Amino acid sequence: MPDLPDSSRPDRFDLSTYLKAQRAVLDQALNDFIRRHFSDSRLNAAMKYSLMASGKRLRPVLCLAAAETVGNINNNTTNNITNDVIQTACAIEMIHTYSLIHDDLPAMDDDDLRRGNPTCHIQFDEATAILAGDALLTLAFEILSRNASATAAPAEMKLKIMHLIAAAAGHKGMIEGQMRDIEAENTPLPLDALKHLHYLKTGALIEAAVVSGALLAGGDGKSIEQLRIYANHIGLAFQVTDDILNVEGDAELMGKATGTDASRHKATYPGLLGLEKSKAFASDLVNNALHALEIFGNKADSLAAIARYVITRNR
Amino acid sequence: MPDLPDSSRPDRFDLSTYLKAQRAVLDQALNDFIRRHFSDSRLNAAMKYSLMASGKRLRPVLCLAAAETVGNINNNTTNNITNDVIQTACAIEMIHTYSLIHDDLPAMDDDDLRRGNPTCHIQFDEATAILAGDALLTLAFEILSRNASATAAPAEMKLKIMHLIAAAAGHKGMIEGQMRDIEAENTPLPLDALKHLHYLKTGALIEAAVVSGALLAGGDGKSIEQLRIYANHIGLAFQVTDDILNVEGDAELMGKATGTDASRHKATYPGLLGLEKSKAFASDLVNNALHALEIFGNKADSLAAIARYVITRNR
Repeated sequence: MPDLPDSSRPDRFDLSTYLKAQRAVLDQALNDFIRRHFSDSRLNAAMKYSLMASGKRLRPVLCLAAAETVGNINNNTTNNITNDVIQTACAIEMIHTYSLIHDDLPAMDDDDLRRGNPTCHIQFDEATAILAGDALLTLAFEILSRNASATAAPAEMKLKIMHLIAAAAGHKGMIEGQMRDIEAENTPLPLDALKHLHYLKTGALIEAAVVSGALLAGGDGKSIEQLRIYANHIGLAFQVTDDILNVEGDAELMGKATGTDASRHKATYPGLLGLEKSKAFASDLVNNALHALEIFGNKADSLAAIARYVITRNR
Repeated sequence: MPDLPDSSRPDRFDLSTYLKAQRAVLDQALNDFIRRHFSDSRLNAAMKYSLMASGKRLRPVLCLAAAETVGNINNNTTNNITNDVIQTACAIEMIHTYSLIHDDLPAMDDDDLRRGNPTCHIQFDEATAILAGDALLTLAFEILSRNASATAAPAEMKLKIMHLIAAAAGHKGMIEGQMRDIEAENTPLPLDALKHLHYLKTGALIEAAVVSGALLAGGDGKSIEQLRIYANHIGLAFQVTDDILNVEGDAELMGKATGTDASRHKATYPGLLGLEKSKAFASDLVNNALHALEIFGNKADSLAAIARYVITRNR
């Protein structure tokens, strides 16, 4: 894996404890929702199966961390992590989960294993997996559009956030990225096209997660702009690291097969740049992300630690 | 087909001209959107292919007609058909189209023909069809969440409408209906379960189309309640008629295969009740729908004519 990027910021932040706490908040919110709204239908079982698999929860944690960063955490409260932020984070995780379910389908990447478990269409069946994905996507928007009067954020803000999430997830964002990824099999894609593909496929929703958390916590224009730069850099770093892990990662740790990019003749950063230059590229991206956080001082410790984690993770 | 239902309301309304005009409004709005927002990507081509196929546009026409019905059309303007109503109608048609694309997939109903044309996965391929469906669903919510300040409806109203559409289309509505439909193959479903399945699969989104149009046009509680009754009755009548057409319809006129229900051993109204009783049932449903419209007087002429059309159509 790449070396830890240089940074003037001392890394005393305990990311492991932080991630554990944030994931607990998210899992509790998701479980609460499931308990109140899911039945014992096959459809709900498949939705729950994929949603509650042991994922990294990167996008929703980023949403919470961005809200903390722009919010007033100096007074030692976490009241800027409102219920709206948590619900938005959960909705984004639902969108991410639906995209994994559909990407794993036989007609797409045809993967049998995800997060160490059978993929949804293997555990259930293909029709159920398609519908579970559709339902998680729809549920995300059902949650995002819940009655504003019951919560803190004004309706205008909720609409704005729904719109940016829908745009990031849609035909000019994540879905177009997945389409290009499929089209790019057996096609020698140049570096710029590969970067843009990954911005669409992964970066856009990561950016939406960060920006929506920051907007809900009252972030101003300058804060949002810096966080957008941060998100774009870690989004790309995440994908470069994914490619590196696909070459030299431990399949058991990762809970999915490695070496699959090469066998599919997909353009990858290691394929285009070589392994060492890919690691240096990921490291540069993270340094740029850290630089974008400087205006927030130590309020951005969690986001900074996540940026470093993105390229040092082993799964 | 069933006899025209009895009704004290004289049917002098020219439905054919009305449908032509409303479909032209919708097609223009959809084409405008496509021209401004679609590229020449394969994904956009597949979305456009299915969205602009020659469908009945039943749901969006109902949305427009419901807005007319509760709006003040006595002053001979159509200004209650605001841009919001048209955009909402278009979004609902996108959701309906996505559901058809996914329902037609090999893992689901495995249909090659839809509206007289090759289904999306036949014309393109399976991966593209899955993504085109995902993208149309996401685009519907992107459109519904567009900046309220640019349009007439307040943000609270837009949120409310998004929420009811998402709920109707989701895991407690349309998608659960499709799941049950698949589970019901080769299963002798009793009449009540079949009715509920169809409420979920077809009725819920029809209801959402009618109610959202009426809400945007300022419908009061009593109007919404009556329109909900109307929608539920025509939704079920629509499905009963679909089953009847599957037995005795003209495959060429319908643009899809007939006799498929029997070969799939699906529970149907003709199967459970016989053909004649099914026709009488559909006729009763439409009479109940017409009864629910009485409070609107001749303002509801379009909705009444659509109710009659639902069971007299031949495709």
